[in-house]
Amino acid sequence: MNDLVTHSIPRSVWHGWGDPAERPALGDEAWTELAARIGVDRSDVAPPVPIDEVRLRPSRLGEAPLAALAGAVGPEHVHTDRRWRIEHAGGKSYPDLYRLRTGDASQAPDAVVVPGSAAQVGEVLRVCEEHGVAVVPFGGGTSVVGGVGAVSDGASGPGRQRAVVTLDLRRLTRVVKVDPKSRLATLEAGLRGPEIEQSLHPHGLTLGHYPQSHQEATVGGYVATRSAGQASTGYGRVDDLVVGARVVTPRGELVLGGRAPASAAGPRLLDVVVGSEGTLGVITEATVRVAPLPTVKRHGAWFFPSFAVAATALRTLVQSVGHGGMPDVCRLSDEDETRVNLTLAGAMGQRLLRYTDLRGTSTPALLVLVWEGTDRSEVRHRRTAAGRVLSRCGGRRLPAQVSRAWERTRFSGPYLRDELMDRRVLADTLETATTWDNLPRLHTAARAAISGALEVEGRRAVVMCHVSHVYAAGASLYYTFLTAAAEDPLAQWRSVKTAASDTIIRAGGTITHHHAVGTDHRAHLAAEIGPLGVGILRALKEQLDPAGILNPGKLIPDLPPGPPGEETAPTAQHARAGA
Amino acid sequence: MNDLVTHSIPRSVWHGWGDPAERPALGDEAWTELAARIGVDRSDVAPPVPIDEVRLRPSRLGEAPLAALAGAVGPEHVHTDRRWRIEHAGGKSYPDLYRLRTGDASQAPDAVVVPGSAAQVGEVLRVCEEHGVAVVPFGGGTSVVGGVGAVSDGASGPGRQRAVVTLDLRRLTRVVKVDPKSRLATLEAGLRGPEIEQSLHPHGLTLGHYPQSHQEATVGGYVATRSAGQASTGYGRVDDLVVGARVVTPRGELVLGGRAPASAAGPRLLDVVVGSEGTLGVITEATVRVAPLPTVKRHGAWFFPSFAVAATALRTLVQSVGHGGMPDVCRLSDEDETRVNLTLAGAMGQRLLRYTDLRGTSTPALLVLVWEGTDRSEVRHRRTAAGRVLSRCGGRRLPAQVSRAWERTRFSGPYLRDELMDRRVLADTLETATTWDNLPRLHTAARAAISGALEVEGRRAVVMCHVSHVYAAGASLYYTFLTAAAEDPLAQWRSVKTAASDTIIRAGGTITHHHAVGTDHRAHLAAEIGPLGVGILRALKEQLDPAGILNPGKLIPDLPPGPPGEETAPTAQHARAGA
Repeated sequence: MNDLVTHSIPRSVWHGWGDPAERPALGDEAWTELAARIGVDRSDVAPPVPIDEVRLRPSRLGEAPLAALAGAVGPEHVHTDRRWRIEHAGGKSYPDLYRLRTGDASQAPDAVVVPGSAAQVGEVLRVCEEHGVAVVPFGGGTSVVGGVGAVSDGASGPGRQRAVVTLDLRRLTRVVKVDPKSRLATLEAGLRGPEIEQSLHPHGLTLGHYPQSHQEATVGGYVATRSAGQASTGYGRVDDLVVGARVVTPRGELVLGGRAPASAAGPRLLDVVVGSEGTLGVITEATVRVAPLPTVKRHGAWFFPSFAVAATALRTLVQSVGHGGMPDVCRLSDEDETRVNLTLAGAMGQRLLRYTDLRGTSTPALLVLVWEGTDRSEVRHRRTAAGRVLSRCGGRRLPAQVSRAWERTRFSGPYLRDELMDRRVLADTLETATTWDNLPRLHTAARAAISGALEVEGRRAVVMCHVSHVYAAGASLYYTFLTAAAEDPLAQWRSVKTAASDTIIRAGGTITHHHAVGTDHRAHLAAEIGPLGVGILRALKEQLDPAGILNPGKLIPDLPPGPPGEETAPTAQHARAGA
Repeated sequence: MNDLVTHSIPRSVWHGWGDPAERPALGDEAWTELAARIGVDRSDVAPPVPIDEVRLRPSRLGEAPLAALAGAVGPEHVHTDRRWRIEHAGGKSYPDLYRLRTGDASQAPDAVVVPGSAAQVGEVLRVCEEHGVAVVPFGGGTSVVGGVGAVSDGASGPGRQRAVVTLDLRRLTRVVKVDPKSRLATLEAGLRGPEIEQSLHPHGLTLGHYPQSHQEATVGGYVATRSAGQASTGYGRVDDLVVGARVVTPRGELVLGGRAPASAAGPRLLDVVVGSEGTLGVITEATVRVAPLPTVKRHGAWFFPSFAVAATALRTLVQSVGHGGMPDVCRLSDEDETRVNLTLAGAMGQRLLRYTDLRGTSTPALLVLVWEGTDRSEVRHRRTAAGRVLSRCGGRRLPAQVSRAWERTRFSGPYLRDELMDRRVLADTLETATTWDNLPRLHTAARAAISGALEVEGRRAVVMCHVSHVYAAGASLYYTFLTAAAEDPLAQWRSVKTAASDTIIRAGGTITHHHAVGTDHRAHLAAEIGPLGVGILRALKEQLDPAGILNPGKLIPDLPPGPPGEETAPTAQHARAGA
């Protein structure tokens, strides 16, 4: 069962993903197709600038805070050199990478500190609060929503004067406790995906959490961003998995949950921390549910006459077999994504397209499934049950190798984007989720918004979508889009992002199903949770981080405009409630 | 399938449960057994005082607020008469009922207002804030932790001067929306359990939520207290079921969730409201997941040589079949509860005890199971799988009628307590939950604490326990205890409550698995979430209810002692985090 063990990759290069030397490349057919579809030219290469040419402002950290930080974590764990700072100048979003590739490290921290314990994290926060230094918690650094850029304030104006340190959790890698009886593991926050798995496998256990960032991202990052892995339909999202956490805040340590699998002891404060994205405290430890390490794995692939028919089939499946009966991975591409993926997949893809065409389906929607388990007959039972429902709902079986092919490349998306960015392609993804009832409407509306924003000035775009997380009440929608970069790719990116986000909110979706909020979704979070929801987040912030040092400019929306000196307008809100 | 439909009961009599005329009675054998075990005398009756003799303070509401409230909801929906006030003078906890039975209505509100819409709820809050009147939200009034007593302040001293109104949600009974495609229903807060079911059954749907209070309690109350029903192992707790809510607060209306089955849009603010027990706002509407109305039901019963063996069997079961494969109801009595229940059950119970004795088990532990579903073969599959695991783990099958017998009387516990209180018996329950690893330790420790506190001054007690909610990571523990009431039953109750709660916290359990916090668990909630957790609750309160009018004295712990003028001691907490 080697394919159950994910392998480690080196920490990412500063301007892209992983080790560029190991980067898989798109084939000739793919480039021909892209040239035809969006008019990009493979030979027109725009590589990242050399690291020496990256523009980096001198560190704003004074001697006193630097000395205090060295005292807190040891001088060898305070880094102010060029490479460390640039390596922490952002996450892996398109804007973050575009800026760095073009030599702009304006979001680099003034220093990177690497504490060795939760106690040292507390000491770093104390020092930073005392010296008015902002702190950006940093796990794997894989945020795709601007979650780890070292901006010192929410506003991007002249207020950016505070020094900022990035607090890298890479030394917090202890496996604190494995409790096989309760199927729980307590892990320090800095453990990366493959390290988590390596520490659990000897106990016959797995976390089963495989976001695309799995190889880089950390358990602390999973919890801080409400991550959902590719196998979350089977193993659950991180918010399902986490039962306890330790969080170091500027006001002290929060120890939440962990006593019981469920409780009625007031609001679930753990859920205030899960998804807090480093703005309320630094997660140093999480207790998570673990599952038996699978020893059986089966793949399956199906096609449907349309995305709409396939979505109904998935709904029927989850509503008839329940979560426990679902495949662990469940990934349905819409017609556009199916065609693009099969076209880019070379000979096998071409054969499949011809096959579905012969079966009368010119615009198929492809469904890829993976089942895991420890009991051959249990896995067979789930697989058979799924097959029955999918057939009844209009699906036709394809060779399982289609699913295996997906699985082999499932972590390589970020590598491909680097190659595309090298060729002046704007390539990004965004995602949402909604109820089944609203899914068709949202799917169409968001697609139209993305295409509409990209297909201007004669440009063409590839816009495609898949469902990758299935629930009894609804599903996620994940869009990938490609187009030739405009003169100002950041402005181009902002226009598509805004159009898509506005539409998602208007069409009743959530602004993010698993990428989190960061800087990129802040404004729309306000629309999703309303002014009073924003007030709650600000009150939590004020309580735990009154000096506002933690991860400025992320997650928590700016104040809505109101009369000066008043944070909210209670009278107007009263009127709303009492209307 | 008539047994799937629960029936409505009249609103409870002021001093006890339901309609006393419909109260089932304990049989002669039961009274003989109780006389032998705890020395109570059936003929020594202490009935509730007549309602006219209940001591009720004159209403403290001035003419201005009364007129404003009448303006808000209509004069016919503002009640200041004796009966309405006494009927809202508390929930159904032992202390609440004891006080009322003995003529003490000191926790009665000064008026009961019954708004007809969320807008009117907002208007009531506005009026009350303006006039400095406290507000106690009231659904079914079934709190067993002092959650609905009309105390005007947390402290019980001379501070109790504010007027208090109880806001009864009985007129908010609209079914706002049923979305069968997404399996969601949006319900107004005042719908009671049987009404919820009646509104869903025509759609072929059920909420599947059956706490013992089901017939009286409301959906708003379920959400406000993180309720768990008897079938939560199958259908999920209310915190699993709720996906959205509308909450009217003194600062305006919060509209949370409902867009998607899952989201990464920051901390899940819905979880701030779920379990907030009326201290942060009034839940007026909830969107909940619903399930297909079952058409198949099967019962099962097993016995084990001991509670420890049976608990291991349950753990093995849930960890091998997963939540989706579990029986919907799963209820394991420890040796004490098994013996008492079988003894009180008359001839059938006696036969079972003789039978298990013949099988070599003198102290059996009884497990009762119920499966529900819509597909005969799916139910059979789960039942067979459970049987296999339970047999392998040392269980032996009993006739299914044992399970049916439990089910027939599953809502009658509160009636029996009334009969016991009539005979000067102190009868109460308390509950907790913990991980499987910690379960044996907590089970023993809490039992010893309860017995130790009750068995003083020559008194004997019956203390028994069951597991009723099973999770992959652990389970709940639910204690029932009976003893002859002392001279001061409230002091006696406080001593056992304190002993049990101290022990639960010390032994690593949660202070409540499904009864909620109310007044009775406030102090121990502070121990569970720590001073910083209390700080978070207070910050939420300050944000949403700055004037502190909502449900005073409930849930949110008092400030820990500290230097005057400082709410918390950041230095000490820094030291803790940085130690």
